[in-house]
Order: sequence, then C-alpha cells, then structure tokens
Amino acid sequence: MSAYAMDKLFESVRDKGHVCVGLDTAAEYIPPAERHRCNCDADAVLAYNRALVDAVIDTAACFKVQIAYYEEMGVAGLSAYAQTLKYIRQRGALVIADVKRSDIADTADRYARAHFCGDFEADFVTLSPYMGMDSIDPWLALAENREKGAFVLLRTSNKGMRDFEYLHIVQDDTNKKDRRLYHAVGDKLAKLAEDHKTKSGYGIFGAVVGADPKSGDEREEALEIRRLYKDLFFLIPGYGAQGGAADDAALLLREGNGGVVNASRSILKAWTKDAAGMDMEKVDNNFAASSARKAALEMRDAIRAAVQKS
Amino acid sequence: MSAYAMDKLFESVRDKGHVCVGLDTAAEYIPPAERHRCNCDADAVLAYNRALVDAVIDTAACFKVQIAYYEEMGVAGLSAYAQTLKYIRQRGALVIADVKRSDIADTADRYARAHFCGDFEADFVTLSPYMGMDSIDPWLALAENREKGAFVLLRTSNKGMRDFEYLHIVQDDTNKKDRRLYHAVGDKLAKLAEDHKTKSGYGIFGAVVGADPKSGDEREEALEIRRLYKDLFFLIPGYGAQGGAADDAALLLREGNGGVVNASRSILKAWTKDAAGMDMEKVDNNFAASSARKAALEMRDAIRAAVQKS
Repeated sequence: MSAYAMDKLFESVRDKGHVCVGLDTAAEYIPPAERHRCNCDADAVLAYNRALVDAVIDTAACFKVQIAYYEEMGVAGLSAYAQTLKYIRQRGALVIADVKRSDIADTADRYARAHFCGDFEADFVTLSPYMGMDSIDPWLALAENREKGAFVLLRTSNKGMRDFEYLHIVQDDTNKKDRRLYHAVGDKLAKLAEDHKTKSGYGIFGAVVGADPKSGDEREEALEIRRLYKDLFFLIPGYGAQGGAADDAALLLREGNGGVVNASRSILKAWTKDAAGMDMEKVDNNFAASSARKAALEMRDAIRAAVQKS
Repeated sequence: MSAYAMDKLFESVRDKGHVCVGLDTAAEYIPPAERHRCNCDADAVLAYNRALVDAVIDTAACFKVQIAYYEEMGVAGLSAYAQTLKYIRQRGALVIADVKRSDIADTADRYARAHFCGDFEADFVTLSPYMGMDSIDPWLALAENREKGAFVLLRTSNKGMRDFEYLHIVQDDTNKKDRRLYHAVGDKLAKLAEDHKTKSGYGIFGAVVGADPKSGDEREEALEIRRLYKDLFFLIPGYGAQGGAADDAALLLREGNGGVVNASRSILKAWTKDAAGMDMEKVDNNFAASSARKAALEMRDAIRAAVQKS
C-alpha cells in the first residue's frame, strides 16, 4: 500500500522520536585527520555524512540536508549532495532537501522535477512563500504523483522574522483580529492541507515553524500556531546551537507527534567537546559518529521528556 | 578603477539598451537536430547558450540564468550552468544568477560564497525576502568585497503576488497610508541602498519588480513604486511570453536607465516562428541564434521607443 512521505514521517516520529538530523556539513566540522585524508572537501563531507547517517539512523526521525553547504563547494559539492541524499534513501530513511525554493509557473515545475526526481531526489523540500501560492501549488501534482512532501516557511526563529513575517496585516475578508503576515500564509497552507490530506491526518505539505527560546507572549504565540494549524506537520528548526530547547519545541508538537525538531551543529560538531584534550590524529569519523549518536539520543530523550511533561 | 556590478550594469544599459536575455534554457527549446547531435541534454543546452550569447552580446545589457532549468538536469545540468556563467563572464558580459535564495546567518554566508565565488560565480543574484533582512544583509559583505550585486523580490508580476506581497499592512512607526507588504520590503531595501550606494547613484542591491500588463490603478502603482524607490535598480521580468509590453516596462525605468527588462522564451524560442514550414534538419543553432538576435533587437528598440514616448 502506498503512502505519502508525510505518513512515513508520522510513523517515523512515533517509532524513533522527533529528532531531524541536519547535515549542514561544512568541511571544517569534520575531524581534521579525516578531512586531510581526502583529496577534496566534497569527498570528506560525503564520507562524514555516511558515517553520521549510519550512527544515528535508528535515532533520527529523518535527515535534513541544507544545500547551501554543498553549493558553496561548486559542482563537486552538489555531487556530494546528490550522493548524500541517495545514501540516506538507500538506507531507508527520510530526507528533507532544505532548499527554500521560491519561484512560479514553469520554473517551479522545473524545480519540482529537480528535487522530486533524478540526481537530487528527496522525500521533502522546503519552500519560501513570498511570491504567493502559485510558488507552492506547482509542487503539488508531482508531490502527489511521487508521494513526496514539502514544508513551507511560516514563522521562523531568526531575529529578522520581525521584519516581514511578523507584520500586522488587514484582511477585509476575515473577522479575525491581531493578524500577522504569517497567519495569512498559515491560513493558505491550512486550506491546502485540508484539500490534500494524508492518512496520518496531516496535509501533504507542512510548515517551518521555529523553536526560538519562548517566554510569555512568545509561548502563547507558539501555542496559538499549533492550535490554529492543527493539520500542518511542522519542521522545527532553531534547536541546540540556535538556542531553542526541548520545552520550546514541545509547544509546537501535537499529541506527541506532528513535528520534527532539527539540530545540525549540536550533532555534527558534538565530537569537538568529547575530543577536548585528545590527540587530534586519533579523532576519526567513527569517534565523531559516536559523539553524534550520543547527542542525538540525548536530544531525543529531552524532547520526549518535555512532551510527557506538557 | 574598481566598480560595482551595479555601476557596470548602469553603463551597459546606457550603451546597449534595457534587454536582459534570460537563459532559462530547457532542452526542448533547442532545435531538434542540435539537441539530438549531443550526447546529453546538458551539453546541448550549453552549446545553445554559447551560440545565443555570441549572437546577442552587443544587444543585451546583461544575461539572467534561471538555475531551476539546470537543476532539473541534475549534476550534469549544474555543470552546464557553471560553464554558461563562465562563458558569459569570459566574454565580458554581466550575468544575474536567478536563484531566489532565501536563508539566514551562516547558511546565507555559504550561499553568498557559492554564487559570488567559485564554480557558480555570477555578477548578481536574486533573493527572496520572506525571512527578513537577516536573509539579505549577510550577502552584503561579500558583495562589497567582490563588487557584486543582488536583486531582491519586491513586487512580482505573477497572479499569486496578491496572496502575500499585496496584503495591506499596519505599521505603527509610520504615518504612511495604504501600505502593502511590498512597501515594507521596499522601504528596507531603500534604506540599504541609501547606506550602500554605487557611483551610478543606485544602491548595491536592487529589486525585482514585474512588468505585467498595466492599466488604471496598476499603472499608478508602477509609477508609485518607481517614485518611492528611486535608488533601487530594477530587474523587470514578465515581458514577452509572460504578457508584459514595452510600455509597461518603461513605467519602471528612471531617466531612461535604472532597470533591465528580462525576456526568456520570446528570445530563446524565437526560431520556432522563423522556422515554420522549414525542414527541421536544416534548423541549427546558428539559425536559432540569428532569430534570437532579431527578437532581442526588436525588444531593445521597442523599449527605447517606449522610453522616448514616456
């Protein structure tokens, strides 16, 4: 029986917890001995990614690969990106292509084929909504055909989200008050989810909602976002190195599911703490992978504990 | 003496007119005989691009390469993308990487290095502002260092722009009335341009403003955008196959400069009209290139005529 990527992700969260391991792998995050063993950084990154995938595959709900880190290395980097996606999928795990694409019409169709088929095939992509729903809708047909998914930027956790996402808006066609731009985006996505639901109960496309440290009003805001958009599965960045904690992330979950929480550097670079004082020649990818596994397990358990508490 | 990409573009518009030739080159836009002569579509696209660049280089203010068309072809496609950019720059012309990137912090830095250096080096990129100015500002340092530029999505010409760009907003810190989201974006970009001006008088970063067919209110809107954001150089898509005409584009220019008007399919596929009834075996890249040149010249002259009329 066929299932959408969102159904598989739902099951993965149920079985393995909420951790999305972000492979934003810069060459400088790799143990120096391993980096210098390879002829080029792109090869070193690929080898490192493989070691990490193997180490956390039973702990991670999914992986997220940030394409910027690969684009920086040019054509060789994008080849490592393609091979990273392929390796994750061959191992039977789910992968989100963090590409935040933002284009319309025929161009969006081309992007959809680029990231749902061929060299760069992923299970999910991330999308940016500024240009409107005709930058999101063109992804739907191929997503349905190939059982893929997407996460659209809704309310992110960076400081700059106050510049536009957070602006108050006036909409004549609704009586709702205190509306911000991200509500307008969320309402469109909720409608799309209602019209394109998966077995899990969540829509085929979800949303990116940040887990920045929350107190007072921001806590209310997170709870409201979760309440308003109950059919949207959330990709939740901002954990760990970006300051978010398990409690913040738990606010955005729904009945213990409905979201994955991404951590990149706190897992990718976990070895740097464990290796303090060691002979760097002895720190290899195995060492780093076991540090990553420990960090991912701790994160999984911290989020599970926060969910039980809430 | 050094000059920013925006200065060079200003001079290029003065000397060559306003046409930005969009190399959104799908393999199916290439004469079939040429396409089948190549072993793979990526090679055919690169050969076609080179022929077109040669044909229009004295007529085009700059080129724009839409990366989606290359991503669709995977790693081989991105290699053709890299070689297309390299060829344009070697020939001394300016190129805009239409990538609409949209990310923050370290990720934005990586993207900046990806598109301002190395395999994918371009003179300009396009950016999407949804996440806020911390998705734009990180590009500045490298742009200054390497004399590059960017165009940020402001008010586009697709139908969906009414979903979010066009929403009315409430801003307590301004007395201005009838404000839409794109005004908030424009004001931030205007401030950035004021703080980072080039010799041409325009800011180091400009904006993407669509040239959809305008009448009545929309005409006023275009004139207002040009008036409000006089220091922003505009990248104007929507011409030709997308329905915009020379008069619409001219509304967005300033004293005969201040903008380039992109056309892709109407130039890339101009040969299909000229070749009607011909033996397709005889339609080669030279034929297509001369049709493209004719289309680009007509477009250049139509915009110049519209500017003189206005």
